[in-house]
Amino acid sequence: MNIRFYNARILTMADGQEPFAGELWVQEDRILYVGEGSVSSEIYEKLPEKCIIWDREIDCQGNLLMPGFKNAHTHSGMTLLRSYADDLPLDQWLNHKIFPVEARMTPEDIAELSKLAILEYLTSGITAAFDMYLTPEAIANAFDDMGMRCVQVGAVNNFSQSPALVEEMYQKLNHAGPLQSYMIGFHGEYTCSRELLEKIAELAHKYKAPVFTHLAETEKEVAECRERYNMTPLAFLDSLGMFDYGGGGYHCVHMTAEDIAIMKKRGMYAVTNPGSNTKLASGIAPVTEFLKAGVPVAIGTDGPASNNCLDMFREMFLVTGLAKLREKDAAAVDAYEVLKMATVNGALGMGLKDADVLKEGKLADMIMIDLSRPNMQPLNNIPKNLVYSGSKENVIMTMIGGKILYEKGNFHTKDRPGEIYERVEKIKKRIILAFSDEK
Amino acid sequence: MNIRFYNARILTMADGQEPFAGELWVQEDRILYVGEGSVSSEIYEKLPEKCIIWDREIDCQGNLLMPGFKNAHTHSGMTLLRSYADDLPLDQWLNHKIFPVEARMTPEDIAELSKLAILEYLTSGITAAFDMYLTPEAIANAFDDMGMRCVQVGAVNNFSQSPALVEEMYQKLNHAGPLQSYMIGFHGEYTCSRELLEKIAELAHKYKAPVFTHLAETEKEVAECRERYNMTPLAFLDSLGMFDYGGGGYHCVHMTAEDIAIMKKRGMYAVTNPGSNTKLASGIAPVTEFLKAGVPVAIGTDGPASNNCLDMFREMFLVTGLAKLREKDAAAVDAYEVLKMATVNGALGMGLKDADVLKEGKLADMIMIDLSRPNMQPLNNIPKNLVYSGSKENVIMTMIGGKILYEKGNFHTKDRPGEIYERVEKIKKRIILAFSDEK
Repeated sequence: MNIRFYNARILTMADGQEPFAGELWVQEDRILYVGEGSVSSEIYEKLPEKCIIWDREIDCQGNLLMPGFKNAHTHSGMTLLRSYADDLPLDQWLNHKIFPVEARMTPEDIAELSKLAILEYLTSGITAAFDMYLTPEAIANAFDDMGMRCVQVGAVNNFSQSPALVEEMYQKLNHAGPLQSYMIGFHGEYTCSRELLEKIAELAHKYKAPVFTHLAETEKEVAECRERYNMTPLAFLDSLGMFDYGGGGYHCVHMTAEDIAIMKKRGMYAVTNPGSNTKLASGIAPVTEFLKAGVPVAIGTDGPASNNCLDMFREMFLVTGLAKLREKDAAAVDAYEVLKMATVNGALGMGLKDADVLKEGKLADMIMIDLSRPNMQPLNNIPKNLVYSGSKENVIMTMIGGKILYEKGNFHTKDRPGEIYERVEKIKKRIILAFSDEK
Repeated sequence: MNIRFYNARILTMADGQEPFAGELWVQEDRILYVGEGSVSSEIYEKLPEKCIIWDREIDCQGNLLMPGFKNAHTHSGMTLLRSYADDLPLDQWLNHKIFPVEARMTPEDIAELSKLAILEYLTSGITAAFDMYLTPEAIANAFDDMGMRCVQVGAVNNFSQSPALVEEMYQKLNHAGPLQSYMIGFHGEYTCSRELLEKIAELAHKYKAPVFTHLAETEKEVAECRERYNMTPLAFLDSLGMFDYGGGGYHCVHMTAEDIAIMKKRGMYAVTNPGSNTKLASGIAPVTEFLKAGVPVAIGTDGPASNNCLDMFREMFLVTGLAKLREKDAAAVDAYEVLKMATVNGALGMGLKDADVLKEGKLADMIMIDLSRPNMQPLNNIPKNLVYSGSKENVIMTMIGGKILYEKGNFHTKDRPGEIYERVEKIKKRIILAFSDEK
């Protein structure tokens, strides 16, 4: 499809650019043109593709085009567990509620549950997810079916996923079509033996590849690692050469100055998950310290069992809000910086170097924001409006790879919401309700 | 209008009731009937009003009816200042940005700006606002024009509002029609001389009335009061007899155990404003301590200059999320308790004793929540879904006093959004842009 967006405001997120009035053209899956004002016929002449025939011309009515949000850490398949077991202490939640249900989920279940998450991503303007979960091939199929971009990451741990599987998926899913990619990763230091971790570090060296993992989410995790290895989790992992080719940590709440120095040295990303860290009482990540040290920060929702929603607007407010509280400084982490985290940094961390900004030749992964809703008025400052008062109600279009998958509340996905809800309801009946009966 | 809602789920919020399938009838501005299941002709027979003629019958398609949210602290007229001056230290923000702009606002401006806030309230399912601002009569007219319920509160301070005006408004606006009421109040201890405060306490005694004020929002405020009077703000105010007839504090972030005991003793409400306290780095209110002491907690957005959005869903997540962080306890303040704060407690604190729950004879101030959006699926637990993953996208109807003012994204208000935005834009040009030019 060739689509012309005119009469738009455009926030490219390139080079600190502020929003401007202009137009943007999409040709197949890429951005063909972005520019200020209205396009004159001269520009048509100069373009390499002459006489473009538009499949659709969209009058944006002054609304905003911007890059889609990148959800830089999630477990999409956990939608089944949304609101299933909240307001519980962490260990009770995990051991008595989450793990027993997860043990009963089939790959087909996880695909279906991931589709439910994908619908929710689309409503929040999320165009790519960095997904860590149990059944990579089923998940890739689900994302492909829905037309959504997914970067999966290995979840090696002592119980259910081996380095061999991760290597296999690394080779396979990185060649599984334009929407799928795969990175090396493991669940966390505290769920992997030293031997397993050494094997993952070997993989990283073999492929000269970055590695991602849950890192320093809770105080307990850090304390136990210190007991085991007399080092913080990051210092220990780094001592194995784990991050010699970069990578990053999810959560990164309880970090020492030395940890942050390691992240900087290795070119690692800190993926912050403020909704989850808040709801599970894990703590507030040192976002201002990452920024001061030059460690790029990306933003993830974490899974729907621990958040419970998959909404980048809530996460964006929390990133800056919690930093302000932590530093007792209302000036901490400004709105534009947060938008950069939610778009550019997420994309680069996930290896989506063509999905970071709106620019000619980049992927057409973008969203339209309705500026005519009361929460966006007056337009004193669009980036600040987005971060401080924006919400899902403002997302009126989500486009991935040039395809409009969500528009004005309606889904243009192959699987319809009602069908997905029905199938999820069946899974719920089979697993959760049956499980409750047993007790 | 007589409206029948059938095929609904209903969360009455009365007596800890969980949602049930049923129907609800509205006659004029009140609820005529709420009950489980489908209504049989026998029930029609038994009702005092026979042969009701419905103006409208609404198939709720399984969606949820619940009481509207009560925004228990706001400054609606500050919409002009949304995103005007964020990411600044508090004193710079207030003295160099907020105050100079406010000084140029006319009563007509404030009415218009309040209308913008009202549109936003409706999108978030807020059916009443507890508003403290500069020009009470203009504000009352704005809320009346829009059909929205408003409880105003005095804002006595050394500079711009006298106890005499508050007394006048107390007499006038409490008889200004079904949508308006007025309570005695002052801006804060730190903006009122002792003499002024004594006069307000006299008013409270004269009318045997509760008093509301900003209370212990910042550490600085508390420290300065201790210097002045050698007491916390609340202890000092209480020593003047200010709360002998109840009332409450907005914010209540920096409270001692003695303060909380005073609140309990005086039957005061703690109105928490987590969005504002987060964005302005004021701190985290001791919500769990209020609950333990039996002090009822209500929730407010604060004004759009300090939040910057007027969204009860964000506030609800923050109330429980910040309590969890503060207590390092994922079990702190459960979802149902938060819903109670946002509905029942707000209503009772604001003196709206007929707008607290869905029950026969109560005001028809209620909302419909779309449960068929992905963020509400699966329906493991509706109250938890509302608090942890709910958002404005789920509000598909807002009814105040039996009138549907907002439905599926459209406003049924007398003033249309486009008109309001245009008038606000003119105010912005006159005040903000002119003010910027001068600098």
